[in-house]
Amino acid sequence: MDSKYNIVSIIRKKRDGQTLEKEEIQHLIREYTADAIPDYQVSAFLMACFLNGLNDEESAALTESMLHSGTVVDLSEISGKKVDKHSTGGVGDKLSLILAPIVAAAGVPVPMISGRGLGHTGGTLDKLESIPGFTVDMNLDRYKEIIGKHNLVLAGQTAEIAPADKRLYALRDVTATVESIPLIAGSIMSKKLAEGIDALVLDVKAGSGAFMKTTEDAIKLGEALVGIGTQFEKETIAYVTNMNQPLGYKIGNWLEVEECIDAMHGEGPDDIMEITHLLSGTMIYLGGKADNVKEGIEISKKMIASGAAFQKWLDIVEEQGGDVEMIKSPNKYPKAEYEFVIKADCDGYLSEMNSYEIGMASVEMGAGRKKKEDDVDPQAGIILKKKIGDKISKGETILMGYTNKPSAIEAASDKLFGAVTIAESKPDDTHLVSHIIDKDGSRAFEL
Amino acid sequence: MDSKYNIVSIIRKKRDGQTLEKEEIQHLIREYTADAIPDYQVSAFLMACFLNGLNDEESAALTESMLHSGTVVDLSEISGKKVDKHSTGGVGDKLSLILAPIVAAAGVPVPMISGRGLGHTGGTLDKLESIPGFTVDMNLDRYKEIIGKHNLVLAGQTAEIAPADKRLYALRDVTATVESIPLIAGSIMSKKLAEGIDALVLDVKAGSGAFMKTTEDAIKLGEALVGIGTQFEKETIAYVTNMNQPLGYKIGNWLEVEECIDAMHGEGPDDIMEITHLLSGTMIYLGGKADNVKEGIEISKKMIASGAAFQKWLDIVEEQGGDVEMIKSPNKYPKAEYEFVIKADCDGYLSEMNSYEIGMASVEMGAGRKKKEDDVDPQAGIILKKKIGDKISKGETILMGYTNKPSAIEAASDKLFGAVTIAESKPDDTHLVSHIIDKDGSRAFEL
Repeated sequence: MDSKYNIVSIIRKKRDGQTLEKEEIQHLIREYTADAIPDYQVSAFLMACFLNGLNDEESAALTESMLHSGTVVDLSEISGKKVDKHSTGGVGDKLSLILAPIVAAAGVPVPMISGRGLGHTGGTLDKLESIPGFTVDMNLDRYKEIIGKHNLVLAGQTAEIAPADKRLYALRDVTATVESIPLIAGSIMSKKLAEGIDALVLDVKAGSGAFMKTTEDAIKLGEALVGIGTQFEKETIAYVTNMNQPLGYKIGNWLEVEECIDAMHGEGPDDIMEITHLLSGTMIYLGGKADNVKEGIEISKKMIASGAAFQKWLDIVEEQGGDVEMIKSPNKYPKAEYEFVIKADCDGYLSEMNSYEIGMASVEMGAGRKKKEDDVDPQAGIILKKKIGDKISKGETILMGYTNKPSAIEAASDKLFGAVTIAESKPDDTHLVSHIIDKDGSRAFEL
Repeated sequence: MDSKYNIVSIIRKKRDGQTLEKEEIQHLIREYTADAIPDYQVSAFLMACFLNGLNDEESAALTESMLHSGTVVDLSEISGKKVDKHSTGGVGDKLSLILAPIVAAAGVPVPMISGRGLGHTGGTLDKLESIPGFTVDMNLDRYKEIIGKHNLVLAGQTAEIAPADKRLYALRDVTATVESIPLIAGSIMSKKLAEGIDALVLDVKAGSGAFMKTTEDAIKLGEALVGIGTQFEKETIAYVTNMNQPLGYKIGNWLEVEECIDAMHGEGPDDIMEITHLLSGTMIYLGGKADNVKEGIEISKKMIASGAAFQKWLDIVEEQGGDVEMIKSPNKYPKAEYEFVIKADCDGYLSEMNSYEIGMASVEMGAGRKKKEDDVDPQAGIILKKKIGDKISKGETILMGYTNKPSAIEAASDKLFGAVTIAESKPDDTHLVSHIIDKDGSRAFEL
């Protein structure tokens, strides 16, 4: 134990709303990672951080301490600016699977380390693993090998990446200290900075299906993330995007892969393609392959139209052990054993979809985890037949449910039926992308 | 685990500033006492309580839950209203040793369970144990036997009394969650209510030598304590008293016993006697042996003048195994091996004494504990030769230090010298007792 710092004094300082020294935060994270500080002191500290906040310097120090608790990948041998994208999580948010091949096809290396589904939200790793044979587990040598070969790698978080974040996250989960903007920002950025990136695009979701329920909170989180990125001299741009209804029409692991395949064939739903091209266009711009985001978006669209993105997708699936035939002929994928229908009980317009409830229903049906140890069912999920603003008649199908758990159908149906609101008049259109957060204002453009 | 309550939801509720149900607090304390909830969840809860507070009902529920985590002593077989006094702790605060025999001699049973020294403050148990042979450890049968025989018992906290408070207190100590008014109030009151009392007088200290540094905070704590007492239908009166200089002239375990013996012989310092008679007079009034506090104070003075208090003191020392000869001839007590002098370095008036620093110096010298496991030295301590307002000349002695640890002298001397301020002009007099907190306003009187 470093005698210069006293953990009780550090907790007290944050408790009293004072600003911690960088060295105090480093000491706490280092000693916690070394098992020299017990959980019960760190959880009191986390609650004090939750309630009294962390300023930009403290957030940066926390991020840096967690980042350096493990390996920081050096990708300097890979030429080009490495760019990744991170989403704060939503329902039906499958964008990574579409934009990563687009950006890699455009010549920008994408070293992507993703997570698993959490609560009501899906996870990129679970979606990838629904492809038979696809593996996301690899050591850092293999990680570098794949990105060197394809400008793309789709990996899971290894034990070497930010182990302090892993421990802190598990503790936050059981002490009601998850929903803290600086703690979320530090957790995300410590993992992303450890990947070896040069620039980062962030998709901060706001709405019923997001962790940030209000646009205001999403902006705060976006600013915290961009602030940390900037302090670490990584170009970082964040978008606040709408998560008041699921993205696209499909929710569930394989179902979402299917929708991504359609998207790579140029047949993606409008909402998905709008955000995908914005994010991938921004990545292409930050990767130095376009002069501005607008040009990046044009390049992104070309990567779809030319088939280059889909070819990149086939290459990476093959490289990481996935069944390429299934990607070429997704209709061969086995279907879930049970399906059920949710129908409208009146005429009108679909006016609200509670994405949180829809996400939780998909978890009930097997598409997500209730406990960390649970397996996910790649076949389970939901296909929406209507989205917000669509006209609907009594008896018409709103959505279909797919599951291998017949015992879950009743509760999931109730949840799904309750998640949808039908109104007499057509709701106003909402913008998919509401805010850009960019420290370098010159890159801002009309949405 | 009671499935109706979820500990993470309870933490979240308090984190978000909501009011907890009584059953939620009961659940948390019950499960924690049963080892069904880990420390790391309770410490996050405690920090949320620290920062967001607890209202009167929540404080009462916390107190009740801790109270009922162990035995609540039934003293109904002892006739008369049982009255105790509790001080929030100060430096040189030896009042319990004087007032307990006074009140018992006046016919009011005093079932007193005390604590040990904490931080810079002394503890009644340590003072009592400086009397050779005196024991404070006893089971509840013996506790009842002694009070039945003498109207007085001076005991230590047993494992049967409020075990939840004991665990929570230890956790607060290492998680920077000690100085919370509702948590302090719950801790004090759960122990006091478990003793079997009918009424309680509280001495809430304010100032440099107290845990509450400001009168404002002391009033808040007093109100919280009286609020809880009232909810449990125990008559409770609190006084806020000044702790900007040590009480009396002697600090240290046996030194304080000596000063108490002087006081019981009618030779106590003015400040000690003023507060002692106020507190014991109030106890005598609440015990039904006086019509008002003023009359109680007169009776208290008579108990000293008649020698009845000193006789009660001799009886209880003998009953609890102490060496009565040492009480009769305190000059026989062995002296500490080393003494040192702190002298004035200029002429003037003694204007400030930082009691916290004086208390910490006495801890250095052996009179208190740095860690819970430390032994205390009964001989170590300080004798003040001057107090605030006294005229002093350069070279004159301010205080004497006594210790058996020669290695501690230098640091303790520096601390003591630094704790004293000499000014050119005489400081204004301050009131010893600044506030009365009494729900039944009719008992209030001019101080």
